[in-house]
Amino acid sequence: MKSMTRHITLNIPTRRAFINITPQVAEVVAESGVQEGLCLVNAMHITASVFINDDESGLHHDYEVWLEKLAPEKPYDQYRHNGFEDNADAHLKRQVMGREVVVAISNGRLDFGPWEQIFYGEFDGKRPKRYLIKVIGE
Amino acid sequence: MKSMTRHITLNIPTRRAFINITPQVAEVVAESGVQEGLCLVNAMHITASVFINDDESGLHHDYEVWLEKLAPEKPYDQYRHNGFEDNADAHLKRQVMGREVVVAISNGRLDFGPWEQIFYGEFDGKRPKRYLIKVIGE
Amino acid sequence: MKSMTRHITLNIPTRRAFINITPQVAEVVAESGVQEGLCLVNAMHITASVFINDDESGLHHDYEVWLEKLAPEKPYDQYRHNGFEDNADAHLKRQVMGREVVVAISNGRLDFGPWEQIFYGEFDGKRPKRYLIKVIGE
Repeated sequence: MKSMTRHITLNIPTRRAFINITPQVAEVVAESGVQEGLCLVNAMHITASVFINDDESGLHHDYEVWLEKLAPEKPYDQYRHNGFEDNADAHLKRQVMGREVVVAISNGRLDFGPWEQIFYGEFDGKRPKRYLIKVIGE
Repeated sequence: MKSMTRHITLNIPTRRAFINITPQVAEVVAESGVQEGLCLVNAMHITASVFINDDESGLHHDYEVWLEKLAPEKPYDQYRHNGFEDNADAHLKRQVMGREVVVAISNGRLDFGPWEQIFYGEFDGKRPKRYLIKVIGE
Repeated sequence: MKSMTRHITLNIPTRRAFINITPQVAEVVAESGVQEGLCLVNAMHITASVFINDDESGLHHDYEVWLEKLAPEKPYDQYRHNGFEDNADAHLKRQVMGREVVVAISNGRLDFGPWEQIFYGEFDGKRPKRYLIKVIGE
């Protein structure tokens, strides 16, 4: 069994953003030499998400509006978590969008449908945060 | 390490539906000969879901009503994604229900609790779409 | 390839609760002897969740309030699933929080960010229920 691990640091200048990380993941899969296996990609922070959806700016705007409706950032004092922090909403939003994705590797490549792209979803940025890529297989 | 990959096409005649795909997944696990390992099942389209829950029609009705409340299909122009398309709600609903499941394989079988069943959740049907089954293990 | 499987029974005295199960998972990873691999942890019941977030009681209170807003327990007759049962809300809440997590194992340990902790989320307790830990790797 082969494996490869990569921790990648992002420093998003805004509180919230969606970043397409598919090229980084594809690169690690290629480097790993794994032909058949699985690739895990997960946020290492609990106020961020890794998810798969469309690379379309209108949709990302819709996600932003929708998540703010489901789990509004403000008023901060609506959340008990917000004693010393102000990011309770980010912990909630990340549960809707998910922590991780697991992608099949077939014939040495991410086995994707036509529009699948991997995103890092930041909900409490303005500081360095990491995501993890783990490849296992043969 | 053994592995097996299967892409399965569905063509759901309605916009939304939940289809029990457990027999198809169990068949691929059996064919793979894997005794101990992991089985990934994921939608290959970004307006569909693979999830595990109960095969009970009342519950599926409740999911339909609930998802329409959380992310309504109409009016279409509430979503910026809906320029040339009308399926923004499907991209949102799929995030709530999830893209994928990873199931343990133990003693050559899906290692399931008493009521676990795997569903393909379609949120923008009426056309051929695929899901993927990937088995790895030994 | 090595693998290890463990089914663990919990009997939560309340309808809802969040239980930190990180020590149990870490113990199975250590016992497995796997240095590089993946660890799947999932609820085996469809009214419970396994998820990763912060071990902070204020946040857990926020989750409880938020999930009750998104998918209220009562009135029971708002859900068609609640014929003989009263737990439809638990099936909905579990979809928001997720069934499972997959965690990388690197250098023989759970490859975690600074605050990641694994929780069992119970949404229909007062009876014995199981979660599963599956480790594969080398």
